Amino acid sequence: MKRDWLLLALDFGGTKLTAGLAASGERRWRAHQRVPSPPGSNAQSDLEIMMGLARDMLAPAKAPLGAVGASFGGPVDAAQGLVLLSHHVPGWEKMPLRESLEERLGVPAAVDNDANVAALGEHRFGAGQGCDSLLYVTVSTGIGGGWIVHGRPYCGADGMAGEIGHMVIDPIGPVCTCGQRGCLEALAAGPAIARHAQQRLAEDPQAGQALRALVGGEVQVVTARHVSQAAKAGDELSRQALDQAARALGRGIGSAISLMNPQRVVVGGGVAKSGPRYFEAVRAAARVTVPPEMTVDIVPAALGDDAPLWGAIALAENCLRAS
Amino acid sequence: MKRDWLLLALDFGGTKLTAGLAASGERRWRAHQRVPSPPGSNAQSDLEIMMGLARDMLAPAKAPLGAVGASFGGPVDAAQGLVLLSHHVPGWEKMPLRESLEERLGVPAAVDNDANVAALGEHRFGAGQGCDSLLYVTVSTGIGGGWIVHGRPYCGADGMAGEIGHMVIDPIGPVCTCGQRGCLEALAAGPAIARHAQQRLAEDPQAGQALRALVGGEVQVVTARHVSQAAKAGDELSRQALDQAARALGRGIGSAISLMNPQRVVVGGGVAKSGPRYFEAVRAAARVTVPPEMTVDIVPAALGDDAPLWGAIALAENCLRAS
Repeated sequence: MKRDWLLLALDFGGTKLTAGLAASGERRWRAHQRVPSPPGSNAQSDLEIMMGLARDMLAPAKAPLGAVGASFGGPVDAAQGLVLLSHHVPGWEKMPLRESLEERLGVPAAVDNDANVAALGEHRFGAGQGCDSLLYVTVSTGIGGGWIVHGRPYCGADGMAGEIGHMVIDPIGPVCTCGQRGCLEALAAGPAIARHAQQRLAEDPQAGQALRALVGGEVQVVTARHVSQAAKAGDELSRQALDQAARALGRGIGSAISLMNPQRVVVGGGVAKSGPRYFEAVRAAARVTVPPEMTVDIVPAALGDDAPLWGAIALAENCLRAS
Repeated sequence: MKRDWLLLALDFGGTKLTAGLAASGERRWRAHQRVPSPPGSNAQSDLEIMMGLARDMLAPAKAPLGAVGASFGGPVDAAQGLVLLSHHVPGWEKMPLRESLEERLGVPAAVDNDANVAALGEHRFGAGQGCDSLLYVTVSTGIGGGWIVHGRPYCGADGMAGEIGHMVIDPIGPVCTCGQRGCLEALAAGPAIARHAQQRLAEDPQAGQALRALVGGEVQVVTARHVSQAAKAGDELSRQALDQAARALGRGIGSAISLMNPQRVVVGGGVAKSGPRYFEAVRAAARVTVPPEMTVDIVPAALGDDAPLWGAIALAENCLRAS
């Protein structure tokens, strides 16, 4: 593999579009841009925005583009390079994104869903380097996961492996967006944290003063980010809401460990920025549910929000190696 | 690989010792013997009994022995060829079984735990042939599992992958032998089925007449095998006890499918002989808990009680290929 090819990474999130340019073999961004996906956007308009970012990055570049990798926030048939759908943006149904990128950019492309791509990114460049087996879990508005098994990405029979968010943790728990009761997502994702904090604020008008201050008293606008921020400032109600979510996440990850005994679990996404106390609670809950002989190694993502983007660079690198 | 080597398979179960002899490339037993592990036996005496079976089988054989594979009913460090312990028979702690077999038989040997070996057996010779990913679940006194991922056995970081029996299905369920509440094993293994049926028999003296007849009225000796037999004869109480266990198993397998999206799930062990009605209940419960896009293909083991033994032949074949 020549070291002076450029690799383009594209991350199609539900609300954000991010592009990055790196040179093969380098571990830093030559260019990096993130823009919001505008309200009312569709697949075509998002793709045009991405192409604009790509052109801006590539125009001043002195080396040739070798390959492009794309991370997509929704189900993808990676083998066919096909986006199946988006839960956020219309028009993505059965969109041949790989083909479209190859036509527009004139280089090989690869596409996969964001959790699989982030798992690959953390494995190649981040907190999972050298692991033969790795579970990546992303905790934000939803909860998703991606696997590295036998040292390489594992996507499952339908490309859907890693749906840890819809494992049932508590059969009498709250109803999930998927219709089941007590899915991990319904207990531990951002909206669950916000809802729990809002309920507690409504029940006890004296509690959570730091959290109330953050939202100017408007309890109904509290998000998981506010709860995390207030918890870091010592707000007891916020800490408890976050601890409860962390325990549910730990139980879910514990089940995954019992089943697969991975070498490491890497947790990314917005909620995973909640700090060491959160991770201690996740680890403690997982440890209790896992056979004592099994490794429980749960760490925060090293690449943060850029895990899918670095994973897309790894996808592009793979294209370059194969070509 | 020459086709006229003999391969020896040994299955060290908790209560039974089984040996089989097959020729490489053939799919039938040249010899097959099963004996009970006598009360009061230990690792050394079980090993001597196995060596006796092996000698009896090999004495009349006309081709040379090429390799030996062993399945062990307990945790094994397969990479080191080391049995870690047995929950049934004393003296197995850190026993170098591979080395011991190689010394005694003068050929390469391989050892792994019974669920991993049975997964390999079903994958190579049974209901999982051609699957890129496969979960094998054995349901008898306990519940264990083994994985095929990327077309080959996957054992996890500590050789413990597949502990589906200790995934928590119901946090307020019955206490398991491992100390947790609501493990799959505590809800769906043989003892859980027997206990549930016994409770129902005690509660309602009119119910379960066919089951009562099987045990001559001695409710306390009812086993899962009796329940299964009575259910097949149409006993309603027995059917309900079995259905309840099948639903729990389906929920557990459903969680495993959500997480790993395997191409197929093969269910073996004594309880899995309970017939089509049992499997329909398992599938229906799994289907409900799994995202609609995912394959739910749950089938009975094709090799029955011989799945670990055929898996041991596959282990031996692998040794022969590598040597």
